[in-house]
Amino acid sequence: MAKTAAIIIIGNEILSGKIRDGNSPYLAGELRALGVNLRSIEIISDNVEAIAERIASCSKAHDIVFTSGGVGPTHDDVTMQGVARGLGLGTVQSQQMAELLRDTCRIRESDAISKMSEIPEGAELIAEGDMFFPLVRVKNVYVFPGVPEYLKDKFEAVKERFREKPFILKKVFVNREEFCIAHIIDHVAVEFPDVIMGSYPKIKEPDYKVMVTLEDTDSKRLEKATKRLVDELPEGSVVRTE
Amino acid sequence: MAKTAAIIIIGNEILSGKIRDGNSPYLAGELRALGVNLRSIEIISDNVEAIAERIASCSKAHDIVFTSGGVGPTHDDVTMQGVARGLGLGTVQSQQMAELLRDTCRIRESDAISKMSEIPEGAELIAEGDMFFPLVRVKNVYVFPGVPEYLKDKFEAVKERFREKPFILKKVFVNREEFCIAHIIDHVAVEFPDVIMGSYPKIKEPDYKVMVTLEDTDSKRLEKATKRLVDELPEGSVVRTE
Repeated sequence: MAKTAAIIIIGNEILSGKIRDGNSPYLAGELRALGVNLRSIEIISDNVEAIAERIASCSKAHDIVFTSGGVGPTHDDVTMQGVARGLGLGTVQSQQMAELLRDTCRIRESDAISKMSEIPEGAELIAEGDMFFPLVRVKNVYVFPGVPEYLKDKFEAVKERFREKPFILKKVFVNREEFCIAHIIDHVAVEFPDVIMGSYPKIKEPDYKVMVTLEDTDSKRLEKATKRLVDELPEGSVVRTE
Repeated sequence: MAKTAAIIIIGNEILSGKIRDGNSPYLAGELRALGVNLRSIEIISDNVEAIAERIASCSKAHDIVFTSGGVGPTHDDVTMQGVARGLGLGTVQSQQMAELLRDTCRIRESDAISKMSEIPEGAELIAEGDMFFPLVRVKNVYVFPGVPEYLKDKFEAVKERFREKPFILKKVFVNREEFCIAHIIDHVAVEFPDVIMGSYPKIKEPDYKVMVTLEDTDSKRLEKATKRLVDELPEGSVVRTE
């Protein structure tokens, strides 16, 4: 069984429509390529109780939890407190974090250093690869910053920890309305319960009306299911297969 | 107090990184312009239990819940079942929905009609404006389709139901590192607790390093808070205000 994961994006700026979240699509694509089964993405506000509640729930339900955002020096950066509370832990002033912020990041303001070096007790500081400041892991929760460039550097540095057997994806493009072929898709889905199937109608595509997707970690079973689908679809309805 | 809302996007295709969710950024922007306080966005899988659990939680915690996705004719379209279960309701075969699907949408396949006209008991069918098929509301939950064009048509038709006093946004662009000005932002946030403040570092902007945002439904209080912030920031550090 593939490992399961949840992403929790922390940021009022996304909920208020000011900034569009690019971190969860990036992580979703990366996790899929690694073979990790991403089960939920949540975008919540910079609020200690809300963060704690979702961390408590997601860290129990999934193998890995990724958070993004709320780790800077300002009043609304409360992710560390929320993560700690959600895991039933306190926070500590990390001497190691304070030194890295001072020496590597060249931050001089003692208030900012003190705020940013308060981390959950028992946390691991990961300072591999091309990171500006260290990544914090506590239990199964990885605490990423919200700035996309920093998030990517940190994820690149640790992603091999998460690699599983990858999913393979097949796409079948069909020039019939979804409601005309729904019973065929359902039939193949029942016959191949381990193949993850999806069907996505497109309104304004000139050459097809539905993209049917099939995914599996087993390439032979995937080929078999794709062939069955293509064989059962009406003659001439399959535009192409990718 | 502004009404609070949650968005629940239902779709394996987003979690697997195949499709990028454009519906939640669209709804976030619209809700902000209407003055509705969006508190969470969740992207979950096409799974009855997962949907029911999040519907139960969000419909209690917020004034309005919007779902998107999982309302089509295929095996993985289980949103109606999930919403009903989350609200402690059964589902019924809606004669009205079946007729609309048959007569307006010109769907001929009886399996598809039967699947798509199974809705939670007590649901309202809203068929205003430029809709291809009706929007389903049950209690405080609005069930939108995942196809962006349909979602937009439906939201346009009902959005005036949600209008509140709108938020006004001010942006202050500052050419100092965030950790140098964090204490000033915090100070203004404490003095004006009703003004929602945010600070967003940018790595690759040539002309500024941090965008500070201030939001309020009261324009005078917002002006006062913005002036206080600009006055307290170091001389020459404010690049512009929008």
